[in-house]
Amino acid sequence: MKCSDVTSREPPPPTCQVAFQPVGKRVAVPLGTTVADAARRAGLPLAADCGGRGTCGQCRVAVAAGPVSTRTGGETLLTARGSLDTDQRLACQVRAQGDISVQIPQTSLFTEQRLQAQGATRAVSIDPTVRACEVAPPPPSLTDPRPDLERVLDELGRQGDPPRPVADLAVIRQLSALGRRSGWRLGAYLRGGEIVGFSAPGRRPVGLAADLGTTKVAGYLVDLETGEELAAAGVANPQIAFGEDVVSRLALAKRSPEAAREIAAVLQQALDALAGHLAERVGVDREQIADVCVVGNTAIIHLFLELPVGPLAAAPFVAATCGAVDLKAREVGLELAPGAYLHVPPAAGGFVGADHVAMILATGLDRSDAVTVGVDIGTNTEIVVSRPNEGLLLSASCASGPAFEGAHIRDGMRAATGAIETVRLPPGKPRLKTIGDAPPVGLCGSGIVDTVAELWHTGVIDERGHLDPAAPGVRRGPQGNEFVLVAGTESGSGQDVVVTQGDISEIQLAKGAIFAGIETLMEAAQLTADEVEEVMVAGAFGSHLDLESARTIGLIPRLPKARYRQVGNAAGEGAKLALVSAVERRRAGQIGHRLRHIELNDQPGFSRRLALALRFPNP
Amino acid sequence: MKCSDVTSREPPPPTCQVAFQPVGKRVAVPLGTTVADAARRAGLPLAADCGGRGTCGQCRVAVAAGPVSTRTGGETLLTARGSLDTDQRLACQVRAQGDISVQIPQTSLFTEQRLQAQGATRAVSIDPTVRACEVAPPPPSLTDPRPDLERVLDELGRQGDPPRPVADLAVIRQLSALGRRSGWRLGAYLRGGEIVGFSAPGRRPVGLAADLGTTKVAGYLVDLETGEELAAAGVANPQIAFGEDVVSRLALAKRSPEAAREIAAVLQQALDALAGHLAERVGVDREQIADVCVVGNTAIIHLFLELPVGPLAAAPFVAATCGAVDLKAREVGLELAPGAYLHVPPAAGGFVGADHVAMILATGLDRSDAVTVGVDIGTNTEIVVSRPNEGLLLSASCASGPAFEGAHIRDGMRAATGAIETVRLPPGKPRLKTIGDAPPVGLCGSGIVDTVAELWHTGVIDERGHLDPAAPGVRRGPQGNEFVLVAGTESGSGQDVVVTQGDISEIQLAKGAIFAGIETLMEAAQLTADEVEEVMVAGAFGSHLDLESARTIGLIPRLPKARYRQVGNAAGEGAKLALVSAVERRRAGQIGHRLRHIELNDQPGFSRRLALALRFPNP
Repeated sequence: MKCSDVTSREPPPPTCQVAFQPVGKRVAVPLGTTVADAARRAGLPLAADCGGRGTCGQCRVAVAAGPVSTRTGGETLLTARGSLDTDQRLACQVRAQGDISVQIPQTSLFTEQRLQAQGATRAVSIDPTVRACEVAPPPPSLTDPRPDLERVLDELGRQGDPPRPVADLAVIRQLSALGRRSGWRLGAYLRGGEIVGFSAPGRRPVGLAADLGTTKVAGYLVDLETGEELAAAGVANPQIAFGEDVVSRLALAKRSPEAAREIAAVLQQALDALAGHLAERVGVDREQIADVCVVGNTAIIHLFLELPVGPLAAAPFVAATCGAVDLKAREVGLELAPGAYLHVPPAAGGFVGADHVAMILATGLDRSDAVTVGVDIGTNTEIVVSRPNEGLLLSASCASGPAFEGAHIRDGMRAATGAIETVRLPPGKPRLKTIGDAPPVGLCGSGIVDTVAELWHTGVIDERGHLDPAAPGVRRGPQGNEFVLVAGTESGSGQDVVVTQGDISEIQLAKGAIFAGIETLMEAAQLTADEVEEVMVAGAFGSHLDLESARTIGLIPRLPKARYRQVGNAAGEGAKLALVSAVERRRAGQIGHRLRHIELNDQPGFSRRLALALRFPNP
Repeated sequence: MKCSDVTSREPPPPTCQVAFQPVGKRVAVPLGTTVADAARRAGLPLAADCGGRGTCGQCRVAVAAGPVSTRTGGETLLTARGSLDTDQRLACQVRAQGDISVQIPQTSLFTEQRLQAQGATRAVSIDPTVRACEVAPPPPSLTDPRPDLERVLDELGRQGDPPRPVADLAVIRQLSALGRRSGWRLGAYLRGGEIVGFSAPGRRPVGLAADLGTTKVAGYLVDLETGEELAAAGVANPQIAFGEDVVSRLALAKRSPEAAREIAAVLQQALDALAGHLAERVGVDREQIADVCVVGNTAIIHLFLELPVGPLAAAPFVAATCGAVDLKAREVGLELAPGAYLHVPPAAGGFVGADHVAMILATGLDRSDAVTVGVDIGTNTEIVVSRPNEGLLLSASCASGPAFEGAHIRDGMRAATGAIETVRLPPGKPRLKTIGDAPPVGLCGSGIVDTVAELWHTGVIDERGHLDPAAPGVRRGPQGNEFVLVAGTESGSGQDVVVTQGDISEIQLAKGAIFAGIETLMEAAQLTADEVEEVMVAGAFGSHLDLESARTIGLIPRLPKARYRQVGNAAGEGAKLALVSAVERRRAGQIGHRLRHIELNDQPGFSRRLALALRFPNP
């Protein structure tokens, strides 16, 4: 028998090395792998709002050495538009054809997005689940060879703390080195009867709150002693590479455990990177992050925790669990205080998840005396109706798509510098406001809604959304009619910024789904629009939305202006509350218990309402 | 810049594939790696009492294909002695010089050793920490889409079980598949308020007890409902490859985290394999193993759990912890019930560990009214003295070496078939008894002690242990004088079985350390030999030891025969008790708290006593 007979009959594909600078990471991948895939394997989350389709232009890299594939059409286009330098490539497009070395600019490694205004922060008394306690036991000696852990526990006992705490292996491992390095002056982070980490003295415990959206991830660091927000940042959810909506991600995860693993891993890595970024920005050690609260819809939480998704992916849409989940943060790859827990508040059921419970917690909607409708607008939109007199709290979830986040829109973009956020169309030239007052390069969600509302006001579109080809500014484009908002001569990119007929259709689908959802839920709660005393609009997009424009296009019910309240990213706020207050964390449990939910698709009137809601209403 | 410029400047060593049959595992290793190292990387623990020195002949394999190194001297010797077939190689000696395929006989994969007689089992009421509860919730449907976990919890609640239990991610993951496969008829394994695993109905929870010795690992499966022992087996501790004694393993682990990782991993893998072997033997699923209790001395427990060993490796010998430790069994690589815990009882301090506490628990020594000395003989020997009237429980640990386990003895061997276990030397021909009444091939611990005692009785050795060159049976061997016990013509191997002058020195060192330890501890407890009412001799070797021979050579104090009791592997028994009885588990905590320990080396009389104890006493 020859030597080769004992090796695998199918030879493994030839591999090559991809080295990343300046981080100094190196990974072996099959020949022909994209640099973006290689980066993901190396644990380097690259920005990619478009999910790797080569259109968002965020994952710019420079290939320093080695053979790679030639420029794709998308890259050529972006270069022509000035969005990509001639010595740059898109990581999602360029493929390694041998050992290569790649330079990653900081902006590609980590992209930040504007977070919403701080809306609905309520006054709560600070009562965190994790608190610090300083200890300074005597150092070990020949006459006092007590073990490291018992040395600290004895000292904590002397300080009159309740029953002897426990500590897990990772925390005991941390102690031996840190104790000796710090001369046995330590802070112990206590979570009830458990030590979840040690620190140098005076280093306060910090909490990480995260709202895992279908498209975006928002993260916050809070000081667990003061409740103060220390830092906040947003990044794209890298799971987009596996499907823009949760349904396609669930289908993929259901097909193979390896896919489920990878879908979970990219989000876990992105959250870990976000935690590191936030900590670095405010001069906090990662090991000071001693508690984590994560919210998200049921599908995202399942995909994040690698819970079984088979039963959730098809009727009757059964979750693995909807209760609160507490696990060690390290189990999902977060390198924080070694014994830190990650808490997920309970969900309501169906796809109505912990993010919705957190939103209700933050807004106090469950305790309001007013008849209230809450709408948390995102790629998945959650709606809640509260009738305090009946003790009713009823929720539903609808897939509204990522159009309001700037995706699926020809010149859509994230809410970043140069994004058009306000649009008025008086006779003559459009009046625009961009983020950072920079030259306009594209439209973020509020800008798109404004534009569509103004087009409707000025009669450029009809009630079905058709652009009038004869109206000023409307021209024939490559994919049908389009309205030119900014000419290339005045834009930041040198290209025209337009709104196409297709863009308007996307907006109609999104706003129709939300409006029909609100109507259907109100009907299920036996409520008419007049009875609604308050409408809370939550979410990053919802906070920057012009409510007048939103009412014009029929995204939200037409009620007196005073009844609306924009409450910011209330889900993230709720996650923060669960970190700084054990009372609020328990309240989230009560909300999850009380909340009832309905499946919109099971409601008799829903599809009829949806068809009607696609149209633009008479003003 | 050329492609090769971006790869590492030092090229990685060329690798080859080693395929293992019949298990079908495959691993890539650097050229020149021994098959034993390759097997370890592939997660296949091969038997190796000698620690990979090519002398014990246990790791026999057949190379089916591919280029390998030539036979070593050790292999040639074993083949000449008939211990190794001509088509066999020793895995620890043979090196891969290209892609190879290796056949591993079952006997090499897993070697069993005779366990001691069941000694000191006490009657306890069965009150395990983990118990099963059967549930049969209605399957999910369109009208009942409750999540999987809540479906089970609701049902448990209906059965009147206490506050809603929790379950970790791994258990929730298990439920979704198992629930559907079993038609939602399930057993839930409950550990207080936590579900640690699910099973098909009627499959009882089983506990795994293990005594991690320096040289050997003993494992037991117990039925958690009846307390019955289902199976027991022993294997070599593969950490031997990193040093025969714990001191050298600690030194190695202290030097590098990678070494510490590997030293932990080999033992974790061996325990996992032992668990699988025991489960298979009695037709139990691995997932039925729902609780684990592991005992061992402090150093072994640190090396097993990968706790920091730096402070333990040098004076003042500070442990990371001596308290009870509870962790998820999966954290140390055990694939059992997905949420199963591993419990380590508390230690006393110094190197006196959980195994000693378990031994005291099993023998009830802490509650005896008699003045008692307990000796647990192993590579590390623990000694305890109890003076009930003074409430004193005092312990010490001494390094006695592996001679009594057959190591460091020319023709020493494990207590396996063909081992000489009893020796009498009447005038004329020696009278021997072997395990399994097979032709003699070597000496196990009790046979060595018998031989030395008989040589002393018959005047063949003097009080310093020198062999009389003129005595019958004594001859000049390659390494000094030796006594021929069995001629090659009558042995199972075709080789003479001899006891060398060096062997006698090893026995003197071992018995001297133990005797001096007992004397020193008794002095510290202000106790004379006459006052001792009972001597308990524990450990696998201690159970088969001829007490008369032991007293003859001065291994144990010379007291009336009735005062001795051989109690078997009491440490393992104690671990079993902690599984089947929560009361006993708590008692172990009390013992750990009560036990005082001394460092023998710090005691003024110890080294003088040790020097004296090396001699053979006057009968």
